[in-house]
Parts: sequence; C-alpha cells; structure tokens
Amino acid sequence: MESRVATASAIPWNECMSHPETSSSAARITPRTLKGFRDYPPEIMIPRERLIDTARRVYRSFGFAPIDTPALEYLDVLTGKGSDETDKQMYRFVDHGGREVGMRFDLTVPLARFAAQHIQELGTPFKRYHIATVWRGENTQRGRYREFMQCDFDTIGVESVTADIETALVIFELLHAIGMPRFTLRLNNRMVLNGLLQRLDLADRASAVLRSLDKLGKLRADDVAKELESVVGLSDAQARDVVGLAALDGDNDAILRDLEHRTEGSEVGQTGVARLREIVAAFEAATGEPGQLRIDPSIARGLDYYTGPIYETFLDELPAIGSICSGGRYDDLAGLFTRQRLPGIGASLGLDRLLAAQEELGLIERVRTPTPILIAFFAADRYHDYLRLARSLRRAGIGSELFPEPRKLGAQLKYADKQGFRAVLILGEDEFQAGTCRIKDLKVGSQEVVHVGPDAGQLVDHLRDLVA
Amino acid sequence: MESRVATASAIPWNECMSHPETSSSAARITPRTLKGFRDYPPEIMIPRERLIDTARRVYRSFGFAPIDTPALEYLDVLTGKGSDETDKQMYRFVDHGGREVGMRFDLTVPLARFAAQHIQELGTPFKRYHIATVWRGENTQRGRYREFMQCDFDTIGVESVTADIETALVIFELLHAIGMPRFTLRLNNRMVLNGLLQRLDLADRASAVLRSLDKLGKLRADDVAKELESVVGLSDAQARDVVGLAALDGDNDAILRDLEHRTEGSEVGQTGVARLREIVAAFEAATGEPGQLRIDPSIARGLDYYTGPIYETFLDELPAIGSICSGGRYDDLAGLFTRQRLPGIGASLGLDRLLAAQEELGLIERVRTPTPILIAFFAADRYHDYLRLARSLRRAGIGSELFPEPRKLGAQLKYADKQGFRAVLILGEDEFQAGTCRIKDLKVGSQEVVHVGPDAGQLVDHLRDLVA
Repeated sequence: MESRVATASAIPWNECMSHPETSSSAARITPRTLKGFRDYPPEIMIPRERLIDTARRVYRSFGFAPIDTPALEYLDVLTGKGSDETDKQMYRFVDHGGREVGMRFDLTVPLARFAAQHIQELGTPFKRYHIATVWRGENTQRGRYREFMQCDFDTIGVESVTADIETALVIFELLHAIGMPRFTLRLNNRMVLNGLLQRLDLADRASAVLRSLDKLGKLRADDVAKELESVVGLSDAQARDVVGLAALDGDNDAILRDLEHRTEGSEVGQTGVARLREIVAAFEAATGEPGQLRIDPSIARGLDYYTGPIYETFLDELPAIGSICSGGRYDDLAGLFTRQRLPGIGASLGLDRLLAAQEELGLIERVRTPTPILIAFFAADRYHDYLRLARSLRRAGIGSELFPEPRKLGAQLKYADKQGFRAVLILGEDEFQAGTCRIKDLKVGSQEVVHVGPDAGQLVDHLRDLVA
Repeated sequence: MESRVATASAIPWNECMSHPETSSSAARITPRTLKGFRDYPPEIMIPRERLIDTARRVYRSFGFAPIDTPALEYLDVLTGKGSDETDKQMYRFVDHGGREVGMRFDLTVPLARFAAQHIQELGTPFKRYHIATVWRGENTQRGRYREFMQCDFDTIGVESVTADIETALVIFELLHAIGMPRFTLRLNNRMVLNGLLQRLDLADRASAVLRSLDKLGKLRADDVAKELESVVGLSDAQARDVVGLAALDGDNDAILRDLEHRTEGSEVGQTGVARLREIVAAFEAATGEPGQLRIDPSIARGLDYYTGPIYETFLDELPAIGSICSGGRYDDLAGLFTRQRLPGIGASLGLDRLLAAQEELGLIERVRTPTPILIAFFAADRYHDYLRLARSLRRAGIGSELFPEPRKLGAQLKYADKQGFRAVLILGEDEFQAGTCRIKDLKVGSQEVVHVGPDAGQLVDHLRDLVA
C-alpha cells in the first residue's frame, strides 16, 4: 500500500497530555491500599511476569499441566487441613447465599480438594502446576504480605523414585532457566530419620524429635540435644545419635555410607538411604552437575505430612535469604476428602524471595516498559507511515511503541529514558524520503543511520541484534 | 558423560501408581466448589493460558506494561464508583483489623485508584494492561460465573486521536494473533450523538436518550422511537432524527457523510465525525483491511462514562455471541480520587466469551498436557539414558515428559492418547544400541524410525517439524 499523507492534522494535536483541573466530584476518597497489600507497578511487574513465565515454561517442558481453582472455597474445605495458625489468619466471611466461605491460604489444600473431586476422571500420574494468589491475614510487622503468589508443581499418584528424581531435576532446570545457576539443592529423606528412630525404639516420638531438630538452624547442636533429652525424653546416647545424624557433613558418598550404617537393621531407614542414593546418581547422570545436589541430614522441614525426600534450595551467594524452592513427598494428599490414597511429591518456587534475591544481586534491570523500541513521532504528516513501520516491526516480533503525539524530540527522548526503552527510532521527512532511519541506542548512547528496506526488513535485521 | 546402567532397580517399581485404601481420617468432607465458581482442569486451562499469553504478547508489542493491584480494597474505594448493581453483588466483609473491605468486581475501579495514587511518579502517557480475576455475586441462573478473569488495556493521559486509533489497531492485531481473523470491529463516537442532541436542543437529556437507544438490539426501531417520545419526551420529529441516526447503515464513507450532515452546526458533533474519519483512514492505512472496521451509529454502550469513540467487536461467524472486545474513551477516570483530570481510552477482551466461541467453532483441540512429546519408559536399565535424552530435547525447546515407570507399552500408549501428546518416543535396548528411536505419531497414526544423533540433534530436527 502506498504511503500517503495522514489526515490526522484535521484534529489539533493536544500538547498537554494530562492536566490538573477541578472536577465536580464532591467528597474525594483517598486512594490507598490495605495494610499488608501492595500495588505492582510495571517496574515490579515486568520481572515478576518474566519469572512466572520461566517457571511455567520449565514446568510445562516436564509435562506438568496448568490448573486453577477458585479463590473462594467452602470454609470447611479450607479449615479441615490447615494448621491452627492458617485457620486464624484466613480471610473468611458469609456470602450472599449465607454460606461460610474462606479465601485460599495456599495451593495445597485446593489441590487436595481438586484431586479428590476429579482424579477418577483425570487418572494418574497427574502432574499439575498452579501459579496463583493466596491470602493470609498475617502479622505485617514481620515484613510479610497478606497477599502473595504461590508457584507450585506436584506429581500425584507416582510412588516410584523417578518422581523424586524428577522433582530435583525440575528445580535444577528452573534455577538455571531463571539465570541463577549458582545454587545448592539440599536433600534429605524423612525415612532415614524414621529408620534411626526405629532402631533406637523411638518411632512413636518422631513428631516431637522433628520439632526439636527443626531448631538446628537457630540453636547449637548441644542445645538441641539437651532439649531432646529434657523435653522429648531421650537418653543421652539417643540424643547424641539423633543430633549426630542431623549434623553429618561431607561429600554425598561419605554421608550415604554413614547413613546406611546408622540405619542398619531398619528397613525403612535403608530404603530411605537407597532412595537418596538413586536420586544422587540420577541427578548426576542427567545434569552433569553433581555438586549442585547435596545430601543434608539436618533438613527437617516442619510440616508433619512429609514422608519421604524433602528438598530445600539455597543460593550460593545469598544463603541467608533462605530456601527459594522447597518441597517433598507426602503419602496421602487428600485423606480429608476421599478414601482413595493419593501419594504425591512436589515443590514450590518462592517467587517473592527469589525476586528479592535477584534485586539484591543486581540481576534486575528496572524498566517500566516491556517493549524494546520507541518510535519517535516527529513528522506529523507521516503518521500513517509511522503506523505502518510500527506494524512491520511488530510482525517481525519486535515490540514497538509509537509515541502518541508529534512533540519535541527532547521530550520524547526523556520519556524513552524514563521508561527504559532499549532504542529510539527517529524518522523525519528526510529519513522517509531517503528510506533510512536513525537508531538511537539508549544503553550504549550511540546513534547510527540504517536503511529501512522493504517491509522494514533491513531495519528488522539490525534491531534483532540490538534487542536480542 | 558416559551412559551407564541405572541403579534405579534397587527400588522395586511400583506397578500400581495409586490405589484405593482405607485411611484413618474420621469424618470426610465432601470435595466441592461454591455455586458460581469452577475448577479449571488442564484441558480448559491450556487454551485459556494460550489466549492470555497471546493477549499479553500483543499488548506488550504496542508498549502496554503490566500492572497488578490487590484483590481486596477498602470498601469505600470500590463502592464509590460502581453502580448499584455492582455494589449489591460485591463480596464484602470486615477483616481481622476491623476494616471494611471488598473484593474487586472489575479492573477499572482499581485502575482509577492506582492512577490517582501513582500517576505523578509514573507520568503520562501511561499505558497499562491488567489481566486478573474479579468477583461478583451474580445470579448464576443467567449462566454467569461469580469469579472470572478480565483482560484490559488502557492508555491514560492521551487526548489525541492517535490513542483512539491505537485502540482499534490493538483489537485488530489481537484477534488476528488469536487466530480469529474473521471479525468486524464496530465503531461509534458518543460525540456524534451528543452533536445531534445539541442541534435538537436535547443535550440535557443525553443519558435518557442513551438508555432508550441501548434497547435497539432488543426492540424494533419504531418502538424505541415511541419510547423516546413517551418516556424521554421527544417530539415525533426529534425521535425520528435520533433513531434515524442510530439506524444508519452502509459503507463507512457514506455513513460519515451522512453523520456530518446530521450534526451540522454542532462543533462537538463535527469533531466527533472528524475523529471517526481519522480512525477509519488510519486503520485502513495501517492494516490494509478497511472492511474489518465499520462505523455503526447504533452502538451506544450503556455506561455513562464514555465520552468519545466506543468499540465493539463481533465474530463474523458467531455475531450472536455478542461483542468479544469492547471499550471506549472516557474523559475523567479517577475523579473520585483526585483533582487531576485523567482522560483515557481502553478496551477489554472477553476471555470467557472468546473461549466459548473458539469451542463452538471447533478451534480448540482438547488436550490435557501442554507437552508435545511422551518418552515411553521401556528398558528399566536405561533410566539414566532416558533422563539424558529428555534433557536434550527440553534444551532444544521440545517439551518432553518421561513416563515414570517401565510399564507395558500398551498402558503407556493409552496414557499418551488420553493426555493428547503429539507423539511418543519408543526406545528399547535395541534402539539404544543402534542409536535410533521409534517415533509414534499419535495424530497421523504413523510410526517411523529415526537416528537420534549427538545431543539428540537429528531427533530434534525431526521433532521440530512435527511439533511446529
């Protein structure tokens, strides 16, 4: 189609794009968000969307499929499974139909309800991911938010160690895909501790032992041992055995040999060690990075429902930020809702923690636009030509915003800088006549003139390198 | 790394992946969702995610940036702007801190609050998209859901016609990107009707006239004219003029000439017609598809706050399903919250309606997995080799699920069929020895043997064509 002069000049361009003016509204409402809630402006939302996209791509590449469930559930569905703390924090109310309802506080209880309701039709293995918002009326003084996003993947109905292995591999690929290849995936197995407790005749005190062991990060090993004696009632030797197991350090092979020895005579313990061994071997074979998976017998994870391998993931540069991807195996997901036993394994990516880490490590480039190119609007008569150029670039996969008004170039460049565009294309009447385009590279600060070519082909080739 | 025999056989493979069993839970809770709410299993969620991805990609390509806002807002923020109906339908309660809160029922009120709060820092033009869930306690008998997703894009702070034009172009690109190129974007301008009413000395009755005109789809033109006379108090000639304008049909040029004539003497009317003319010209220049934009003076859109162009989009094959993308220009977004006048224009993609249309037109392939390839697990000793193969495929961008257990091939193929994988890769000991792979194409039903090649390169080339 021939380029032709725009008729746009029939309407005067409005120089002032927004201006204060008294309005007739009587009493104004202060614009504000609730305590513990926050807005996500573009510069926060862009890296967040990128992270979610990456997680989704990795989950999908392993065969996990997306599901979603309602934000609101019957209160009895949510309260049955949660702890006293989540029950207390839950947002709950009576709806228009007089039903007691609650807002979901995690994605695990909804998964249990969903699986119980649909598993006959879905069949197993059922591999799902679920990325969605949850709400908890937490104490905001601890820096916690009352609305946050969870990013879970789980495999339901597979008891084989292959699902344990796959969970480790998903975490590995996830962190690499996110661009944070320096991490350590720490692995333990509840069965190992259970095996030791069995050997020590303490199987009935597993929960209490776990609760004490969970303090190993905060308390010294000696103090945990004392607590095991005084509170849980272990003998001095028993306490030393338990704490000794949790304190094991060294390379995976050495720890595995030691664990095998310490669980001798307990079938569950030996199976637990064998499973760890298999995960380690398969992880090494599949990734070629054996060093990124470490057996860590101190990892307990507070939750009672884990029954097999448990996972935590720490950034080598920021271990103190805590685990950024954690999970484990559970024997019975949906016992509250169905007689069918649904074993599962899964983990959850800590989006907010990971974003905070990326921020701290300077990995996030703060931009306010997801679009790399701004086309300056310079020659008012060439409006239709700008539109066609923008379309050619977009069709070639290069996001391009056209400035909405033919303002002074300085103002447009200022806008481009503030938004964080990668480059500005400048075309005036001369450039249109010559079939060229000035590219101002805002990152490098350089400027060059290139030929646009038919369907902007030459320009596209040039920009592709720039925005890659 | 050398291929080596897996140690996986140390743990017996569990033939039965999930099995009913009595559990100790006492009183079970019936797994169920609230009335008006629904689960999204993979086969529904996969096309939904695809649609959202496409919308995002198109919005971003024009320079719209993502934002998000809390699901919960102070009640006064939400009630001030909504209609009586949305107020009545809103989920509301008192939170732990004694605050009256509500769940957002649309994304426009949160945008108004967000813009009033942040626009000084963000500056204009501010172009944002927002794809998020909203809640309304609607009457479910009308087939409505109480939880649904909105998918909005808006430009704040630009009064120029360029933003009107861009809105039309975004809708055009959106529908093409979604794979529904047969649609008509219907365009009107409130200024035109206001111009006519001005000429007829009826400017003060604009709202009442609009309400009657909005019934043009349901009532005959004569009945609307009668209502304008009896209810709004127009003279017979006035009513005929108003209904005559709304009933105009024909090609865009003819309608524009007619509208110009009918609004003669009214500046606002003439400006409205000139703006329509510019949108039509630019749309034609930019898209080369003038027939997909039609001026339709009957489009009123009930909402009072539109002040300029208004848009509705109908599928040529399913016009009865209603507009699948609608919007318009408003003069003052955030008057409830700020003195600063924030003019804007935007539109919203009707996700659920569009998915229903795609379903009805047979455009949705129902699959339960987002992953094209299933690798059958056949040779138990080759587990690590399967893992490495899967990784090579994933690294090449080809999503590949590895079946978790070495079950009979028939059972694995049945699973692959049910899930909707595109192809199954079958490798037994013979294939591993020969460096080949059997590909069973589940769509075509064919089977062929190909060489895997180093890093699965040859296989990747082959599969790329298949999954493209």
